Amino acid sequence: MFSPIKSTKVYEQVIEQIKNMIDQGMLKKGDKLPSERSLVQQLEVSRASIREALRALEVIGLIDCRQGEGSYIKASFQDNLFEPLSIMFMLEGSNQEEIWELRKIMEVEAAGLASKRITDEQLIELKELTQKFINCDDEDINSEIDKKFHYKIAECSGNVLIFDILKTVSTLVDHFIKDARKLIIVHEGNKEILFSQHNEIYLAMERHSSSDARKAMREHLDFANKYKSERTI
Amino acid sequence: MFSPIKSTKVYEQVIEQIKNMIDQGMLKKGDKLPSERSLVQQLEVSRASIREALRALEVIGLIDCRQGEGSYIKASFQDNLFEPLSIMFMLEGSNQEEIWELRKIMEVEAAGLASKRITDEQLIELKELTQKFINCDDEDINSEIDKKFHYKIAECSGNVLIFDILKTVSTLVDHFIKDARKLIIVHEGNKEILFSQHNEIYLAMERHSSSDARKAMREHLDFANKYKSERTI
Repeated sequence: MFSPIKSTKVYEQVIEQIKNMIDQGMLKKGDKLPSERSLVQQLEVSRASIREALRALEVIGLIDCRQGEGSYIKASFQDNLFEPLSIMFMLEGSNQEEIWELRKIMEVEAAGLASKRITDEQLIELKELTQKFINCDDEDINSEIDKKFHYKIAECSGNVLIFDILKTVSTLVDHFIKDARKLIIVHEGNKEILFSQHNEIYLAMERHSSSDARKAMREHLDFANKYKSERTI
Repeated sequence: MFSPIKSTKVYEQVIEQIKNMIDQGMLKKGDKLPSERSLVQQLEVSRASIREALRALEVIGLIDCRQGEGSYIKASFQDNLFEPLSIMFMLEGSNQEEIWELRKIMEVEAAGLASKRITDEQLIELKELTQKFINCDDEDINSEIDKKFHYKIAECSGNVLIFDILKTVSTLVDHFIKDARKLIIVHEGNKEILFSQHNEIYLAMERHSSSDARKAMREHLDFANKYKSERTI
């Protein structure tokens, strides 16, 4: 299992050993890490080094340190990566346009892959999300359904990396535009257009047509982007 | 500038204040952070909290803590994000195919964007990288030139996010296949094919043709992928 550590940047080696355990399948999502005390004994390093390593993993979004309960490998990586990405984006001076560009690339390709890989069960879920959309007048709920629709397609791409990056990018987009939808639907008739665009995407999935799915997603995002740009910031 | 902190997860607030300084442009790439002692005084928190925060930022790849010198915001984010992404990929059980798929999407789109945005100066640099390729018999050097060629195109995309994600993904690909090139060029004539593919990509850039650039990059990667798959792992 663990083995004693002797060296300079101690916390790095603590992380390295935790990584190795993950790599070997000894630690999985949702698993509890050994206690700080136990890590101190097994790795023969100071409590401070252990805490530095755990904090770093917590900031990264990989573990969850619960007061009085111990540390757990996260079961899902919802906001994972967000912290480092957002700081980096600030330092790089990346702007809304770059984030939007990346999102468009990823979503269009995710739609293409999803159309080929979507299961019958997932098609039913996606159809439900499409239908709910017209049957609801509450914009807060619609906004949630909208997000779920897009996440579902990213999920159906069958590529965890694409899914994770899209989640991160979407979170960032949300930080810039609190609610893109609201900017769009103030214009009469746009709610219906959004529905029909979602429906086109869904129908392309049903036909398992990659080119149609990519085209429909591209048109949908270009439409949304047009309204986003109306804002002054 | 900084202001005293009172609360529970102290290190998070230390990071938050550093983030704010970055956001406000008070800290930039390459800048030195205040000393640990000075941070302790200004933020009125324990030295342990400061160190936890700094360690976390170091693991993320945003700062560089140099023994006896202090902490610096990194001037470039070469390996940034690699640590969290690689651990996450292990936990998610993502495989080589997923990484390759993501890389292909990003590189093809990067080529498309680069063809539109590449400057005359960058075109000269890219041409040099293309030419060096045939004039050299040392495979280690060729391998380096090959990587630089791909990075250059990602850079010319003009989108920092795309550039950063591609760097991370490429590092991960390198971890799986130590040297993709070597697997390809053991086959007679393949070195010439690789050169001519790079040249096609370059020529598309010169013509500023987005569709040609994407097509040439796609063909190049599909070709490389074919040989990659020959490996048993």
